[in-house]
Amino acid sequence: MTEAPGAETFLSHSNYGKSEVRLVKVKRDTQRHEIQDLDISVALEGGFDAAHTKGDNSQLLATDTMRNTVYALAKDNLTGSIEGFGLTLVDHFLEAGPTVKRVSIEITAFPWHRIEVDGRGHDHSFVRGAGERKAKVTGDESGDRRVEAGVDDLTVLKTTDSGWEGFLRDEYTTLPETDDRILATVITANWAYSGTDLDFDGLWSGVRDRILTTFTDHYSPSAQNTLYRMGEAVLESYAEVEKIQFSLPNKHHIPYDLDRFGIDNNNEIFHATHDPYGLIEGTIERRP
Amino acid sequence: MTEAPGAETFLSHSNYGKSEVRLVKVKRDTQRHEIQDLDISVALEGGFDAAHTKGDNSQLLATDTMRNTVYALAKDNLTGSIEGFGLTLVDHFLEAGPTVKRVSIEITAFPWHRIEVDGRGHDHSFVRGAGERKAKVTGDESGDRRVEAGVDDLTVLKTTDSGWEGFLRDEYTTLPETDDRILATVITANWAYSGTDLDFDGLWSGVRDRILTTFTDHYSPSAQNTLYRMGEAVLESYAEVEKIQFSLPNKHHIPYDLDRFGIDNNNEIFHATHDPYGLIEGTIERRP
Amino acid sequence: MTEAPGAETFLSHSNYGKSEVRLVKVKRDTQRHEIQDLDISVALEGGFDAAHTKGDNSQLLATDTMRNTVYALAKDNLTGSIEGFGLTLVDHFLEAGPTVKRVSIEITAFPWHRIEVDGRGHDHSFVRGAGERKAKVTGDESGDRRVEAGVDDLTVLKTTDSGWEGFLRDEYTTLPETDDRILATVITANWAYSGTDLDFDGLWSGVRDRILTTFTDHYSPSAQNTLYRMGEAVLESYAEVEKIQFSLPNKHHIPYDLDRFGIDNNNEIFHATHDPYGLIEGTIERRP
Amino acid sequence: MTEAPGAETFLSHSNYGKSEVRLVKVKRDTQRHEIQDLDISVALEGGFDAAHTKGDNSQLLATDTMRNTVYALAKDNLTGSIEGFGLTLVDHFLEAGPTVKRVSIEITAFPWHRIEVDGRGHDHSFVRGAGERKAKVTGDESGDRRVEAGVDDLTVLKTTDSGWEGFLRDEYTTLPETDDRILATVITANWAYSGTDLDFDGLWSGVRDRILTTFTDHYSPSAQNTLYRMGEAVLESYAEVEKIQFSLPNKHHIPYDLDRFGIDNNNEIFHATHDPYGLIEGTIERRP
Repeated sequence: MTEAPGAETFLSHSNYGKSEVRLVKVKRDTQRHEIQDLDISVALEGGFDAAHTKGDNSQLLATDTMRNTVYALAKDNLTGSIEGFGLTLVDHFLEAGPTVKRVSIEITAFPWHRIEVDGRGHDHSFVRGAGERKAKVTGDESGDRRVEAGVDDLTVLKTTDSGWEGFLRDEYTTLPETDDRILATVITANWAYSGTDLDFDGLWSGVRDRILTTFTDHYSPSAQNTLYRMGEAVLESYAEVEKIQFSLPNKHHIPYDLDRFGIDNNNEIFHATHDPYGLIEGTIERRP
Repeated sequence: MTEAPGAETFLSHSNYGKSEVRLVKVKRDTQRHEIQDLDISVALEGGFDAAHTKGDNSQLLATDTMRNTVYALAKDNLTGSIEGFGLTLVDHFLEAGPTVKRVSIEITAFPWHRIEVDGRGHDHSFVRGAGERKAKVTGDESGDRRVEAGVDDLTVLKTTDSGWEGFLRDEYTTLPETDDRILATVITANWAYSGTDLDFDGLWSGVRDRILTTFTDHYSPSAQNTLYRMGEAVLESYAEVEKIQFSLPNKHHIPYDLDRFGIDNNNEIFHATHDPYGLIEGTIERRP
Repeated sequence: MTEAPGAETFLSHSNYGKSEVRLVKVKRDTQRHEIQDLDISVALEGGFDAAHTKGDNSQLLATDTMRNTVYALAKDNLTGSIEGFGLTLVDHFLEAGPTVKRVSIEITAFPWHRIEVDGRGHDHSFVRGAGERKAKVTGDESGDRRVEAGVDDLTVLKTTDSGWEGFLRDEYTTLPETDDRILATVITANWAYSGTDLDFDGLWSGVRDRILTTFTDHYSPSAQNTLYRMGEAVLESYAEVEKIQFSLPNKHHIPYDLDRFGIDNNNEIFHATHDPYGLIEGTIERRP
Repeated sequence: MTEAPGAETFLSHSNYGKSEVRLVKVKRDTQRHEIQDLDISVALEGGFDAAHTKGDNSQLLATDTMRNTVYALAKDNLTGSIEGFGLTLVDHFLEAGPTVKRVSIEITAFPWHRIEVDGRGHDHSFVRGAGERKAKVTGDESGDRRVEAGVDDLTVLKTTDSGWEGFLRDEYTTLPETDDRILATVITANWAYSGTDLDFDGLWSGVRDRILTTFTDHYSPSAQNTLYRMGEAVLESYAEVEKIQFSLPNKHHIPYDLDRFGIDNNNEIFHATHDPYGLIEGTIERRP
């Protein structure tokens, strides 16, 4: 320990807000109800130094107030896409805090599907599906607004048409090459839109669909190549998407060694292992 | 501390086995692959006293051997339902351990759906769905076999047609009555079959469907009543089901108090709270 | 599907209650505060058939009332052990519900230690420790009361003095024998007391200590033998303990194969694998 | 959907590696063993475009090779601090991948304490503690190396000497002011060192201790002020620390309303709620 008595310290960055505001809105103006099930986080940046360094809270909106605000504004303003509601919240909080310079709203939407009864979706009964829809809206005092969307927990797998060959080998390499393996991953993707007045619901479904269909449509020589292809397909289909980022944990499926028991595995029996996992990440952009 | 020097102790119960054997089997005899993604647990009971009290392992099958066995037997025997594979494993392990008296196999199957491409499910690309299918098969030396099935992580919600009225009030009761609330729960159900030679896949889908459709078809005065109705519907539809047990956490959705802000909530804006939760459990049987 | 139209069904078992009531009590009668951080679950059994089959809630205490009650009674009655508070809650709920026949209270206590400042524990600042203390108190109308205690999430490991040899081998056995391995497990133990008027805090610490010290004091030929020894030691030391049950997941640590790289591992480098795991369970009792 | 046929896309960023390599090393050169229980992640950046865009894997080290490498190098090189081992791994992987430009190694160390037997720590038996130690080492081709350390899952609470007053109020503010509340948080902190040849073990313990003791030593008018004080204390005590970042979820403890039952709470009975939570983040630096 070397004391640093004369050191002058300062707050170089700060943000604060409310996380995991769990808001469910039911649209019930007709008998056929609709539901939005959201997890909302609010984060503010700005001139909060007095609170940090002097214990002066007079410029701080309480995070409890942020919670109240999210519920209160949802009544009249959560009428369309989650991205649209995010924009409303950004505008509100830029006004509400006198020293707020920048607001970030993150929203996760959990999917609910109508329960099928006699082949038709029920009016007010729902079953939760897999996967999550994400939105992130940021804005600052200058009027700049940025909208991003994403998917999370989208778990996909292909049983063939994937390999891992021709990779670099060194003294610690033991993995055999293969031209037929299982490729499995939990897709986390985030993409940035070029505008704030778009059909966010339609775009989200379209981008998700392009990701999924591209996952199926080629021989995958690597998670890297499939990542790039998915990103390229999205950018080629949607001019509204400026860039897209993927995080793909490689959920390894190891053919179980059955030779030891006189059994030919034949790529049918796999051990799905939890750890460790490969993690492949990349961002694909449109060239300016 | 009161010492008990002359106390004679004994092993009154024991079991051991392997948990979370993660087995994926790909059926690839045609271009249209099928996949089974399973988590399998093996538990053995029997004469294991020597291992416990004397450190004599000579009658113990290693849990690592159990793992190998599950993968090895899956190649030729996991050809139909998970319940059928469970029966095979029960038979095997009753033979394999010289002192094994009883075997319990628990299997969780994770659902995968074909990725839709141009309106048609892809041959070998899948996306994981929500919910889990469960099976439990037990058997003993006498030849007795019991098959149970179940669902887990089946999250359902109805936005109306549910209330909570006329309940007992005492000095600690503050909850208002309501005839229109959200009812939400994560259904865990387990049911016992009357036989071992049944169409387990068809039955499982049918029972799950009866649970879901019954959830939708009535005004729910309580989670208890809905639980009972779901159980009754299953038993009335399927003579093969002897009894069914439900565990229903009541995932409370609290109307957010917007009156404070001059806003009429009108049962549209809810806080989905995590804790605490009501837990409602019950077993419905066929009267002998 | 075989319909069972004339089937008569009935509710063979039910219970309901409130789970995860997260109660923190601060004892602040002196400057040196004390804290109890608890997760409490209440479950009632009794004559709830009318609620299930007829939607008649008139005999049901709301689970929200149970929550209120737990907090209200904690003020004056949570003054000693969690087991003592459990007994109070059992008595209360047997009275509170007109048709309640049996009450079960489960309490988890999270450990907090005083933050050390200049070698002395601070008066009102705490840091959370590992592991959990458990209590379960049950009682019925007849006046019968049962108190159990336990530990959970108590993760232990020994780097030597453990082996796995002389086990049964069959055609699927590939595991080599070893007389020097890592033994690691997450101890879950529950034990039953012979009475209700005991020094529960002292006993809990003593039993936990006997479990830990016994874990250290022998060459372990198997998790089974160590399980039995720990149980025997507890029963021999504490006449107040009638029986004890252990659930021991065997957290496998696999020596990593470094021979492939010309490196002698020498039992120093291990892969701590998550799945699958052996699960060893047993109950040790005092012979009547 | 607006197609963007002529769009030219490119890979603007990528990284890949192996996550959750679970390595346990036992130092056993004397009877008194020591243990390191680590979770290690490797991430590489560099010229991986050919893999992404052309499916050419020839410049890619397999993530499986990274795993082998971590275990192999641990034998001789994991002899001191985790930061030191991270530096070794950075050097290795910069060499190993022909196109690797930048390496990032993240290590989590899980704490194990010796089991106490007769007042003395046992030679080879351990019990796991709470909290996690973190290290992050990055380096690039130019020879630049950066070492960061941190704590995670360090849960602290003070029962008094904390308030929340004088904050901004608007139309959505309902929270009352208080000068005596519980302050509870799970500290995540990361700090950057000024060098690579430091006593990392001693520094880590010292910084952690300064964080904890500062948490205790003042009336906290806000989580923000306590955050700043903790950072300032660290920077003032350790010249080796250049900056420190905190992420502090405010784990709210709400006084339970017992007035309704004629009971005076007196700040003794709290509901520890999970959601939502305030999240306070800040970075304190040394002024250049």
